Amino acid sequence: MQKTKQDELKQEAAKKAALMVEPNSVLGVGTGSTVAFFIDELAKINREKALNLKAIVTTSNRSRAQLEKQGFKVNELSEVDQIDLTVDGADRVDLNLNGIKGGGGALTLEKNVAVNSKKNIWIVDETKFVDRLKGFALPVEVLPISCEQNFRTFSQEGLLPKYRLDDNGKRYITHYGNFIIDLHVDPIPFPNVLAHYLDSVVGVVEHGLFLNICNEVIIAHSDGKIEIRKR
Amino acid sequence: MQKTKQDELKQEAAKKAALMVEPNSVLGVGTGSTVAFFIDELAKINREKALNLKAIVTTSNRSRAQLEKQGFKVNELSEVDQIDLTVDGADRVDLNLNGIKGGGGALTLEKNVAVNSKKNIWIVDETKFVDRLKGFALPVEVLPISCEQNFRTFSQEGLLPKYRLDDNGKRYITHYGNFIIDLHVDPIPFPNVLAHYLDSVVGVVEHGLFLNICNEVIIAHSDGKIEIRKR
Repeated sequence: MQKTKQDELKQEAAKKAALMVEPNSVLGVGTGSTVAFFIDELAKINREKALNLKAIVTTSNRSRAQLEKQGFKVNELSEVDQIDLTVDGADRVDLNLNGIKGGGGALTLEKNVAVNSKKNIWIVDETKFVDRLKGFALPVEVLPISCEQNFRTFSQEGLLPKYRLDDNGKRYITHYGNFIIDLHVDPIPFPNVLAHYLDSVVGVVEHGLFLNICNEVIIAHSDGKIEIRKR
Repeated sequence: MQKTKQDELKQEAAKKAALMVEPNSVLGVGTGSTVAFFIDELAKINREKALNLKAIVTTSNRSRAQLEKQGFKVNELSEVDQIDLTVDGADRVDLNLNGIKGGGGALTLEKNVAVNSKKNIWIVDETKFVDRLKGFALPVEVLPISCEQNFRTFSQEGLLPKYRLDDNGKRYITHYGNFIIDLHVDPIPFPNVLAHYLDSVVGVVEHGLFLNICNEVIIAHSDGKIEIRKR
């Protein structure tokens, strides 16, 4: 099977990220098609010069399986003190390196891993890099007990909520047994204000605004250029 | 079995609360020994003059069983729009009618019910009524995925965290599969500051600071006096 040009780009971006992994460090690994390339590149580097990673934590079973297949041991976040570097994707990232994550529904674990990492690097293709957060609904994970009240409050506030549905048209259920309400505010006018508000809403477990978390973004442009932006 | 003086007091306080329940309203019912008296008093009033309550929501299986035994139908919070009045207990309540709840471990459901109630009345005995929040550790419900990081952060911040344990000495697990970390800050110096901080901590599902929630507290004093304080 021939590799597409997009895959080549993702692989090149992933390689750049893999080269940033320090020996003897604790690594966080996210999820996504580019992260899959990252794991392969990481394994290559590890074969060439043993990285002796102290521990690896990941945010999905898919990445876990791929890491283990490549011979890495995967730990739980609870088993490590702090993560040195986490490499992940993002659904949107803006000029300030603030982002939206949670399109895959794992925002809560992703955020817990991210905030417990000293450094976060995101790899994205250029379609996800935006001047301001737009073009992607903001996921909010809510407890089922008061989801209806949360939904109405969001609606009254003008936040355009919609329940996320699964393939059978039923409400999507997260790993933690909660629902996801996607807020269709587009663009998000005041990310910090909205994050602050959502943090305070009783019933909200976590939300997909990842602000002041990403330190460095690797952007794969369709013209073949790999751009690195730092906070 | 003879009723103790304390039980008589609780019953009297509970009766006062039951008389505040409006006909045709949606009622929230908490948990605890005084709330148990409240349910009995409510049933008495309902037999005398049908209250025609639109719905009842409760925060525990124990209260649910007692309500159903008394012939009331119990609904889920998700089935009602808003609760008109919730009657509950509290572990501590201060002069500003701010409180600590969650000694029983159900703080998350209790807070979701409380914030979705137009009015909240708490019934307490005088040992729980304090000038400022003290004498009771503050429960914080945390996701297991990053509980160790939360614990260390709380510890570094001087919040004196301890995991709540069950009868077998293992970590207590909430209804939602989470842990409880009790913060042994005593007294709590700045309740609003602490609540604001805890709201923002990734991994915290809910905490037991119930601020600006209680409208009215009914205090049963050991000298037989029933005191009512309003916000």
